[in-house]
Amino acid sequence: MSPADLCHMRHALTLARRGLGRTWPNPAVGCVIVAPDGRVVGRGVTAPGGRPHAEPQALAQAGAAARGATAYVTLEPCAHHGRTPPCAEALVAAGVARVVTALTDPDPRVAGGGHAILRAAGIEVTEGVLAMPAARVNAGFFSRVTRGRPLVTLKIAATLDGRIATASGESRWITGAEARRRVHAMRASHDAVMVGAGTALADDPMLDVRDMGAMPQPVRIVVDSRLRLPVDCRLGRSAGAQPVWLVHTAAAPAPARDAWRAAGAELFEVAATPEGRVDPLAALSALGARGLTRVFCEGGAALAAALSTADLIDEIVWFTAGALIGGDGRAGMGALGLGRLELAPRFRLESVEPVGPDIVHFWRRAT
Amino acid sequence: MSPADLCHMRHALTLARRGLGRTWPNPAVGCVIVAPDGRVVGRGVTAPGGRPHAEPQALAQAGAAARGATAYVTLEPCAHHGRTPPCAEALVAAGVARVVTALTDPDPRVAGGGHAILRAAGIEVTEGVLAMPAARVNAGFFSRVTRGRPLVTLKIAATLDGRIATASGESRWITGAEARRRVHAMRASHDAVMVGAGTALADDPMLDVRDMGAMPQPVRIVVDSRLRLPVDCRLGRSAGAQPVWLVHTAAAPAPARDAWRAAGAELFEVAATPEGRVDPLAALSALGARGLTRVFCEGGAALAAALSTADLIDEIVWFTAGALIGGDGRAGMGALGLGRLELAPRFRLESVEPVGPDIVHFWRRAT
Repeated sequence: MSPADLCHMRHALTLARRGLGRTWPNPAVGCVIVAPDGRVVGRGVTAPGGRPHAEPQALAQAGAAARGATAYVTLEPCAHHGRTPPCAEALVAAGVARVVTALTDPDPRVAGGGHAILRAAGIEVTEGVLAMPAARVNAGFFSRVTRGRPLVTLKIAATLDGRIATASGESRWITGAEARRRVHAMRASHDAVMVGAGTALADDPMLDVRDMGAMPQPVRIVVDSRLRLPVDCRLGRSAGAQPVWLVHTAAAPAPARDAWRAAGAELFEVAATPEGRVDPLAALSALGARGLTRVFCEGGAALAAALSTADLIDEIVWFTAGALIGGDGRAGMGALGLGRLELAPRFRLESVEPVGPDIVHFWRRAT
Repeated sequence: MSPADLCHMRHALTLARRGLGRTWPNPAVGCVIVAPDGRVVGRGVTAPGGRPHAEPQALAQAGAAARGATAYVTLEPCAHHGRTPPCAEALVAAGVARVVTALTDPDPRVAGGGHAILRAAGIEVTEGVLAMPAARVNAGFFSRVTRGRPLVTLKIAATLDGRIATASGESRWITGAEARRRVHAMRASHDAVMVGAGTALADDPMLDVRDMGAMPQPVRIVVDSRLRLPVDCRLGRSAGAQPVWLVHTAAAPAPARDAWRAAGAELFEVAATPEGRVDPLAALSALGARGLTRVFCEGGAALAAALSTADLIDEIVWFTAGALIGGDGRAGMGALGLGRLELAPRFRLESVEPVGPDIVHFWRRAT
């Protein structure tokens, strides 16, 4: 592994990140083809929807210049025949001399098979370059493949004292315009935005990506055990134009199911908890089976607490506004019923920075 | 004002900051004497207890070198005869050629009189150099003189969701050792540490500065309307060695007053609110009249809410740990009864940084 390898893999990771939120059920992969003289002759990133993959796009851009070149790929090239021939074979056919990858693909249909195809063809393979940042980029895909559920990022925007609304429910706006704009960018890098029924009922949100130019929109998910949300809400009225998925239990009445299906929504019936709520792991498993890799949960307090209690929160993005609402305001997190402080879920700080008049801090579940 | 002026005034402000928490009722002032050739020939900072002032100490260090030198002082030299002659006269007597100051002293006994004495003696005076940072250093003294109450900094150490303890009251430890060490350093730069009776009863705290080497200890204050705190608590047992002040109302029983006085505590009877609590402005006015300039309030939720409702919180130091306790935990801030979100008190971000596994963010009341 040379400094040039690190440089080109960083380039490939930057490309991969651009695909986040748009490539599900596939991973967002970046590929850079570098000629022996160091010139970058091809670049590719998994296309929206997951195909074509990054490698054939980069190879097409490189053309004849791929012969003898080095290909940098953020994830092991695929080895299985799907709608297209496997990327490992495409790299062989293009005559690249060397392939550098960051990670082995955990998909059991690949799982080292891509690297084996390359080596069998006499190509030099270097694995594990920038594996840690690549694991971050691929965390959602890895979660879907290895845990059967998407990565879950919880976003909360609260006052210093952790309140997301006044006692009367007023919440617009606690954080400033810069923080809200940042939230839209975060939505865009996730496959789906998810809220609980209480939040959907209270705020009638669109949960879309706004003011970011034309871009693929995330799936909008409401966890609503009994399908209480009326179909004439903003989500219902826009379900034909941008996906709306509803996760409910067997207790959802048939008329509500029919109305939502007629509006264009996709419904997921999953197991209930003893209290009759949607079982959070069952919900995420259904979403993972449907292909989601990255879910951005924007509350409310009950859904956030249910996810936390089931230890299903992988990352937290917390916006803190320099304001106080007080203990009679609405909390951002529901009851967790912790018997002892040592049982409190702990998260490791990733970063913290000012954003407009507020601060945003990122945390990752401590393992 | 030259670049050298800025440099020397910065030096003087650094000296002044060292005195914070030790000079009440006087301001923490720094003084630097610079010879015409640019050499620093004298340095002084207000001594613990407030006397001697910075200027005579710096002049004593400079000796004959003060003649023809420039004196940089973070606050206008005093003009009134107290236990010692005024500093303005001492600067005249030492023969300095020029005096550079950052701020006019708001004390009505000075209020420009120091500058006038210097100018009348033919000394060149430059005012207002680094006035903004000097105002920060002197904020507590200015608050006492102009508002009749100390500057109030609220410190909270909470989980992401704003909880300072579990439902059962377990709070050790939410933040890490680095944050707790930082709190001790903050206590040391304040004249007093203040808590409500509930916190004192629940935690039996010492409220002292530990593990920082030998240094003056802050006054320890408990706001306890009816003097419920038993005198055999740790504060009571140590009241003879390090000051303990109790702020109460007329409802405090005589035996409790006698017991606390016997233990060495100083008592302040102040007005009550209609609910029978200590009136927070009355409490702070009593503390300001007694000489305090900087109070570090460490909760609990009821006292913090009372201070916020009366708009008496000037600064907030908030430690956030990467943990969740949930809505059934104890909130760091009591009820504020805000009718509308626009009534929520807003604070302006000063800084934010990681501290060990936690973050600390500083906010200042937006005016």
